[in-house]
Amino acid sequence: MTAATTTTPIRQRVAVAGASGRMGRMLIEAILNSGDCVLAAALDLPDSPSLGSDPSAFLGKPSGLQIESDVRSALSKADCLIDFTRPEGTMGHLAVAAELGVKVVIGTTGFSDEQKAQIAAYAEKTAVVLSPNMSVGVNVTFKLLEMAAKALQQGGYDIEIVEAHHKHKVDAPSGTALKMGEVIAEAQGTQLADRAVYERYGHTGERKADSIGFATVRGGDIVGDHTVLFAGTGERIEIAHKSSSRAGYANGSLRAVAYLADKKSGQYDMYDVLKLR
Amino acid sequence: MTAATTTTPIRQRVAVAGASGRMGRMLIEAILNSGDCVLAAALDLPDSPSLGSDPSAFLGKPSGLQIESDVRSALSKADCLIDFTRPEGTMGHLAVAAELGVKVVIGTTGFSDEQKAQIAAYAEKTAVVLSPNMSVGVNVTFKLLEMAAKALQQGGYDIEIVEAHHKHKVDAPSGTALKMGEVIAEAQGTQLADRAVYERYGHTGERKADSIGFATVRGGDIVGDHTVLFAGTGERIEIAHKSSSRAGYANGSLRAVAYLADKKSGQYDMYDVLKLR
Amino acid sequence: MTAATTTTPIRQRVAVAGASGRMGRMLIEAILNSGDCVLAAALDLPDSPSLGSDPSAFLGKPSGLQIESDVRSALSKADCLIDFTRPEGTMGHLAVAAELGVKVVIGTTGFSDEQKAQIAAYAEKTAVVLSPNMSVGVNVTFKLLEMAAKALQQGGYDIEIVEAHHKHKVDAPSGTALKMGEVIAEAQGTQLADRAVYERYGHTGERKADSIGFATVRGGDIVGDHTVLFAGTGERIEIAHKSSSRAGYANGSLRAVAYLADKKSGQYDMYDVLKLR
Amino acid sequence: MTAATTTTPIRQRVAVAGASGRMGRMLIEAILNSGDCVLAAALDLPDSPSLGSDPSAFLGKPSGLQIESDVRSALSKADCLIDFTRPEGTMGHLAVAAELGVKVVIGTTGFSDEQKAQIAAYAEKTAVVLSPNMSVGVNVTFKLLEMAAKALQQGGYDIEIVEAHHKHKVDAPSGTALKMGEVIAEAQGTQLADRAVYERYGHTGERKADSIGFATVRGGDIVGDHTVLFAGTGERIEIAHKSSSRAGYANGSLRAVAYLADKKSGQYDMYDVLKLR
Repeated sequence: MTAATTTTPIRQRVAVAGASGRMGRMLIEAILNSGDCVLAAALDLPDSPSLGSDPSAFLGKPSGLQIESDVRSALSKADCLIDFTRPEGTMGHLAVAAELGVKVVIGTTGFSDEQKAQIAAYAEKTAVVLSPNMSVGVNVTFKLLEMAAKALQQGGYDIEIVEAHHKHKVDAPSGTALKMGEVIAEAQGTQLADRAVYERYGHTGERKADSIGFATVRGGDIVGDHTVLFAGTGERIEIAHKSSSRAGYANGSLRAVAYLADKKSGQYDMYDVLKLR
Repeated sequence: MTAATTTTPIRQRVAVAGASGRMGRMLIEAILNSGDCVLAAALDLPDSPSLGSDPSAFLGKPSGLQIESDVRSALSKADCLIDFTRPEGTMGHLAVAAELGVKVVIGTTGFSDEQKAQIAAYAEKTAVVLSPNMSVGVNVTFKLLEMAAKALQQGGYDIEIVEAHHKHKVDAPSGTALKMGEVIAEAQGTQLADRAVYERYGHTGERKADSIGFATVRGGDIVGDHTVLFAGTGERIEIAHKSSSRAGYANGSLRAVAYLADKKSGQYDMYDVLKLR
Repeated sequence: MTAATTTTPIRQRVAVAGASGRMGRMLIEAILNSGDCVLAAALDLPDSPSLGSDPSAFLGKPSGLQIESDVRSALSKADCLIDFTRPEGTMGHLAVAAELGVKVVIGTTGFSDEQKAQIAAYAEKTAVVLSPNMSVGVNVTFKLLEMAAKALQQGGYDIEIVEAHHKHKVDAPSGTALKMGEVIAEAQGTQLADRAVYERYGHTGERKADSIGFATVRGGDIVGDHTVLFAGTGERIEIAHKSSSRAGYANGSLRAVAYLADKKSGQYDMYDVLKLR
Repeated sequence: MTAATTTTPIRQRVAVAGASGRMGRMLIEAILNSGDCVLAAALDLPDSPSLGSDPSAFLGKPSGLQIESDVRSALSKADCLIDFTRPEGTMGHLAVAAELGVKVVIGTTGFSDEQKAQIAAYAEKTAVVLSPNMSVGVNVTFKLLEMAAKALQQGGYDIEIVEAHHKHKVDAPSGTALKMGEVIAEAQGTQLADRAVYERYGHTGERKADSIGFATVRGGDIVGDHTVLFAGTGERIEIAHKSSSRAGYANGSLRAVAYLADKKSGQYDMYDVLKLR
């Protein structure tokens, strides 16, 4: 990084991997709209038809950059890489980033245990944020649920998780709903598997006091709503997260970039970035 | 009924059957709070321990009446009877009411087909409102759903019914939720049985376009919430009914009393009372 | 229209005005995704830089058509024109459409009384749908509110309208919320001006029984949520419309196209199209 | 307290002040339904017509106790007093309780600064819980809002507070809504007075980024709903508390009784009881 000659905050120079993909484009749009960072480089695979084109042309705001496939060249221009690609690609980027001291925000999912161990090793050389869900709102919601689950463990608060998604979703409940259930169960010193009720139909009998119920709604183009009820006597608390687009993932990634600005090394997750620990 | 000597509206004189039961008391409270009718008599079974006591003493507002078991005596003081008791009792009351020309609002459920035929016969002699659900809100909601189901039959609106009730409820979905599904299916010229999806868990596949999904929430002391979604592309309509007490049944009964004020005979239901036809 | 040689329904050939604008593109996308109509022509202004380009190239699905500025040429290829442009442009298109017998769906707003009279005159020659809001959901919601307002006029149901929009909206309440209030007030034989309460702060006193309250939420990028409460004793009914994109306007326009398919002339609105009368 | 001769948990013996009032009765009902404590004494004023009657007769479950007015006699039978009365009465009870080492849960409001200082002094002799709002759910909600306000301070989350109450409420926004605003503002190192927007009507201009908006709904018999939105780009978090009765106050009081079981002295509040610090 060049020395700052003024007292204005230094804007982080960010490289984006998978620059021509859907998530890559959303990241590029978020970076261009941000006052805290600048787009410094855009990476894509060597066989990508978009190599050589301007990474922000699709927004009607050309950056003057070109999408490139040379990882070392791209990272040498950046303070931080944001990577939502595939495990193999990410591991390759990380090797170069660790060598160059470039920080990495990893939104890629599906790492093997071995790859996770490698990431931890690279994090001794450069600072890394690794999180399976980069959304600020979802992570804050997990934390809110953890607190509520502890505070409402006594007193007969029944816990129910209602989720709604678009008609094309093929499984139920959603992964986020299940994760919410796990966060709650763990906060109460229990296992979700011992408490989850996924279906209710016909003669169900009275609700078991320690159960965690799931209810699923499917329809239209609902991006993703999750509501958790803590229903007591005479009152209920509801904690809800409602998504209307994927912009939340990009915004969370930029929060992670900012968090890493003064870090030299170490592995972090969104709970660190958002100071939820 | 005595002749009105002024132009002020005549307040209906109402008799209540089952006066010392939970629904009877709610009816008495509603009548005392109403400006449109007065409590004229209170009936209970011959073996009721409350015979002879003041029917509104429990409110701290004595009426000067006594709970009695003589049906003819009670009805002779009334313009209209409200009856939420048992089929046999109601049939007995109805025989006397028809003879005396006293109108009857029947919230009792569980009549046999034969009894229903008898009610129709009595309704040739006096005016009767018979409805399995006297709640104004629930009936209006059924009508709104009927209209919405017709208006949104084209255009890819996915229909989902979410209901929430207290932890003691032993069946799912609720009878009201099922009735909502039937109203919707019929409005669209179909059968609920061909469209209902009561459970979703694991790999469900994409939502079928013509399905009507049900989702069930159980917790705390929730009296009864029902929400129907019509989820399209880029928009959704939600129609919800939320109960916080049984007062709605009493209020609906008084609407039925008022509706009958100028009727001599005929059988009606809450759709007539609420002018939903 | 060419003669149908099979029994399959004839797909309406649709021309889109303002084809390179935001609404034009949304219409083109909706037409391409529809099984009921085909894109037949795309119009834009003579000085539009997009003239000559393929109107659906932005979707990655070229149509083989070119955006053109010759109204007569474009309309001669179409059964129906959809026009969300400006009053002057729409009037010009309408003159040609009436002459050629091409139907017109008009989502343009801001017509003068004189222009409205002209539209009525053109509608004697060709069939026209004119509506200030083409959204199916919003129009159905208006109708639901009208019915609910009548059914719940007695019985002490308090009416409140809550609306939420994005942080950039500069006025409150929204035009749609006000229209909802008007629909409700009219359905009850009253004027909104006599009943509206737009602000509550400090010592407000008890709620007046006949008031219609408005509450405004502003935040984030909320596209537009409207919820109307009918709050009684022991129960409430809520009717809500929630927008997540402008796709609803395009979908409503295609419903209007289909509605006009068998009409020769006459002026209609979305209540006709949706059979809400 | 008598020595426990088994290892089963000792049930706290509870005295209730104001036993024949609405809150007193709710407390008595909660105690009788609780497995953790027993009703040990019931206090009321010397001129109360209920003196001598059984404090739980109204439930149809006589306790064998009599409502009495002798504070010393009543407290000598109890481990803990629950007091939702008036400041003067509470101070008198507290003097005796401190002398006898009986713990006190105070839900009374309206203490002067001098009285608060006295309570602190008494709390050196016996353990006291003092809180203006004993509801578990409301206190947990305050804590959730505090956490959310910190976690979402960056990132452009607009904060809006919507509250709904019954038609008889004469002020707006509710005290709880204002307290929520204060909790949020303080958590973000700011003052509510600098950020609150209580009314929006007409040309409001765009929303100011740091404002906290309030919206008020009034209707029917809504006991009290509060919803706080944190509306960002592409997502929102909603935290809601919905009351359906005052039972929450009684339940919170019993939580406080249990919390004090092993305390000898000290002043605590519901954040301590619920381990929210």
